[in-house]
Amino acid sequence: MAQAVFSFVGGTTGRWQITHMAAVIGAPLEAVSRLDILNVALASLPNGAAWMLRGETDDAQYMHPVERAALAALQPPLDRAEATCAALIPIKKATRWWALTQHERRTIFEEQAHHMEIGMQYLPAVARRLHYCRDLNTPFDFLTWFEYAPEHADAFEVLTSRLRATEEWGYMEREIDIRLTRL
Amino acid sequence: MAQAVFSFVGGTTGRWQITHMAAVIGAPLEAVSRLDILNVALASLPNGAAWMLRGETDDAQYMHPVERAALAALQPPLDRAEATCAALIPIKKATRWWALTQHERRTIFEEQAHHMEIGMQYLPAVARRLHYCRDLNTPFDFLTWFEYAPEHADAFEVLTSRLRATEEWGYMEREIDIRLTRL
Repeated sequence: MAQAVFSFVGGTTGRWQITHMAAVIGAPLEAVSRLDILNVALASLPNGAAWMLRGETDDAQYMHPVERAALAALQPPLDRAEATCAALIPIKKATRWWALTQHERRTIFEEQAHHMEIGMQYLPAVARRLHYCRDLNTPFDFLTWFEYAPEHADAFEVLTSRLRATEEWGYMEREIDIRLTRL
Repeated sequence: MAQAVFSFVGGTTGRWQITHMAAVIGAPLEAVSRLDILNVALASLPNGAAWMLRGETDDAQYMHPVERAALAALQPPLDRAEATCAALIPIKKATRWWALTQHERRTIFEEQAHHMEIGMQYLPAVARRLHYCRDLNTPFDFLTWFEYAPEHADAFEVLTSRLRATEEWGYMEREIDIRLTRL
C-alpha cells in the first residue's frame, strides 16, 4: 500500500539528474548529481547519499470538497511523459511567521492571491506535490515538488519569480532551489 | 480589525431570511426564521436567539501559494449584489472518519475529486467560505457558507447532490441544510 510519506535522497543514484542547485536564502545543501524519490519514510541515510529530506502530503483534509475537486480539475498529474523537467524547493519559514496571528497570515495570503491571479493561465502546465515536514525533525517546513515540460520552463521561471516577490516570501529563513531533468 | 471568527445566530433578526431548514443526517437544529452573521466570537447566545454556531476560517495556511492563488482566481467574493441566495451547511464527521489513516482519507478524496471534476464548470457562480469548529466546543466540525444568484440555484442543487453522493459523505454523522435569501 502506497504511503503518504516521501523521502528525497540527494546522492549519486536515482531517476532525476540535478542540473542546478542554489541556496536562495540561508545555508546551502551539499551539491549532488542525482536525486532519488522514494514513497517511503527512510529511517537513515542510504549508503553513498549526501542528504535526505522527508515530508508527508496532507493538505486535502483541510479543504472543502468543492475546492479539492476544483484543484484536481486544474492540475495535471505527476509523471506525465512530457514533463521531463522538475524542481524541488525546500523552504523554512522564520519563527516570526508562525508567531503571526491567523488574521495577519490571511491578510498576507489575500494580497498574494490578488497579485498572482493574472499569472494563473500557465497553471495546468505545472504539476505539483506539497510535502509537510515541520513536525518531522527536518531543517525545512515544506518541500514542494514541481514537474513540467521543457517548453514550459520559461513559465515556471515566471511562477517562481512571482512567488519570491510575495510578502509571504519575506518570511522565509531558508530556501533551496534544485532543478532536475528526468533520466 | 476584522477577525477570522464568525458567529451564525439563528433567531428572529438578521439580514438573511431562512426559506428552508432540513436535518439531512442526525438531529435537527431548532427551526428559526432569520439568520444573523457576525464577524466576532460571541461568548453567549444573544437575547431571543435559538442557537448560535461559531467557526473560524483557516484553510489557507495549509495550501501552496500557487493553489491558494488558483482558487482565489476561480472563486467569486462573498457579498456580490446578485448573490441573494445562500446556504449554511453545518456538518459533523463520524469518529470513524477521524480514525482513518491519512492514506485512507486521501484515497477517498482522490476518488471524490475524480467524480466531481466534470461538474466544475459552475464553480465561478458559487462563493464559499469554510469555517472550522471542531476545536471550538460546538456540535459540528465544519460550517460551510455558500452564496449564489437565483439563476444558479439549480446548479447549486447539482453541487450538493454530488457532494452527498461522495464516499466522504458516507462518514457524516450530522448534516443540516439551511437555505436563505437576503433581505
